[in-house]
Amino acid sequence: VNERELVARLRAKATSVPGLVLGIGDDCAIFRPRAGQDLVFTTDLFLEDIHFRRASSTPEQAGRRALARSLSDIAAMGASPRFCLVSLALPAWADTKWFDAFYRGLLQLAREHRMAVAGGDLSHAEKLVCDVMICGSVAKGKALRRDGAAPGDVLYVSGPLGGWTHKEMPEPRIALGRKLVGKASAAMDLSDGLSLDLHRLCLASGVAAKVDCEPPRLPGATLEQALHDGEDYELLYTAPENVSVPGFRIGSIVRGRPGRVSFLGKPLPPQGYDHFSRNRS
Amino acid sequence: VNERELVARLRAKATSVPGLVLGIGDDCAIFRPRAGQDLVFTTDLFLEDIHFRRASSTPEQAGRRALARSLSDIAAMGASPRFCLVSLALPAWADTKWFDAFYRGLLQLAREHRMAVAGGDLSHAEKLVCDVMICGSVAKGKALRRDGAAPGDVLYVSGPLGGWTHKEMPEPRIALGRKLVGKASAAMDLSDGLSLDLHRLCLASGVAAKVDCEPPRLPGATLEQALHDGEDYELLYTAPENVSVPGFRIGSIVRGRPGRVSFLGKPLPPQGYDHFSRNRS
Repeated sequence: VNERELVARLRAKATSVPGLVLGIGDDCAIFRPRAGQDLVFTTDLFLEDIHFRRASSTPEQAGRRALARSLSDIAAMGASPRFCLVSLALPAWADTKWFDAFYRGLLQLAREHRMAVAGGDLSHAEKLVCDVMICGSVAKGKALRRDGAAPGDVLYVSGPLGGWTHKEMPEPRIALGRKLVGKASAAMDLSDGLSLDLHRLCLASGVAAKVDCEPPRLPGATLEQALHDGEDYELLYTAPENVSVPGFRIGSIVRGRPGRVSFLGKPLPPQGYDHFSRNRS
Repeated sequence: VNERELVARLRAKATSVPGLVLGIGDDCAIFRPRAGQDLVFTTDLFLEDIHFRRASSTPEQAGRRALARSLSDIAAMGASPRFCLVSLALPAWADTKWFDAFYRGLLQLAREHRMAVAGGDLSHAEKLVCDVMICGSVAKGKALRRDGAAPGDVLYVSGPLGGWTHKEMPEPRIALGRKLVGKASAAMDLSDGLSLDLHRLCLASGVAAKVDCEPPRLPGATLEQALHDGEDYELLYTAPENVSVPGFRIGSIVRGRPGRVSFLGKPLPPQGYDHFSRNRS
């Protein structure tokens, strides 16, 4: 397999989306923004033996998860995904069959959200490296940020937690994120666990939070997992009491030392996943 | 060193650019495009032992080169860089001092081009992984593409070639690219060597090319290196005979089998760098 063949395979599978003037095959992709829209950008690494193991997921699942990580960030902004760039370094074991299956999984999720693969980079490495950048769009000034939570706001999660080992077919909350635009005061993706991510949301907003009930959790997940595990592909968000939003109420935003979080009346220190602690703390 | 500290260090060093509504620290960066502009996007991997070796470059040089690779693609479109996202997976040997120096080199080049680091991702890995996505802007419909070369056009390179082992301080041709807008009929970055990249430009444009003089080369570079080595950070472009553009004339575009290239009257097969041949062919 050579680079030109791989690029030709990708081009053949590329889909077109409004605004994408030029996709795979030139030095850059060209996108023509619509007036009245802001663009949002995120990128997420997906690394062998860090974010997935070859032995425990199919290439289709790996491809889907590589895209889902970034899509969840787009959902958290209330945006709609438009296109992605996929950087991929393939190890010797990743043959054409594996590559095709990986892209099949990735493109299936891309199609579900009507987004294009507009470009990327190809290289080789000892372990598989994938980095997915997504560009999304949202009405001007309407993106959901982390820094808008205010004392008195209600705190929500979008679904059951504790699922990082369970979800082989993640469904990023794009539709929900779009519904929250103009309603939620703050939102973020639950990527590193509720305790750490809620701490971050509170820090960004300069507020404290109290979680006053057990968060909903996936079948088989313990309370510890629901509080501290990451990669849930769910959203954490706040809205004023008088604004109706979908989701599970788990507490409220309060005045207090920025970043302080309590759970059932006791302090809940941030214990989620930090990539530089080398393991779960 | 932990993730939050690293992100805080990056935020402190972040610069602001027009249109960047929100940079490092949320789920996504937010960018507000200007009317009448197209946006261009590229991403390039920069991998330890593939694109650089720890022993033979300083961290500042590595950081600069990680960004320069993508900047060269932006130059090839005739665009101005606006912001980048930097994904980085650090091995155990990359301590805070190394990280700071790597970013110093990257940010120095970013400042020279008035662009911001708007976000990215951090993780860890056995070998250093870096992926740099850049968003640039160009007047609507004016981006330089590979597919516009026509028989009779003159063929140019922007500078001396054969430098992939020599250039520790690459200077992407952003200023030149902008000058070519509205003048060049096609342009691309010389990333994989003249013979392979010219072949690609001709394929995209459905034309052939003849190189009728030796290309300019860097001191110490052989003719073979000038024809086949990559990572020159120079541009390859074409323009009609009656249009004046800066650069070195090396030949012309002719009718013929798409992709066919000749050098001093003999066929020049594409021999540049293919990432999946595992070595230079």
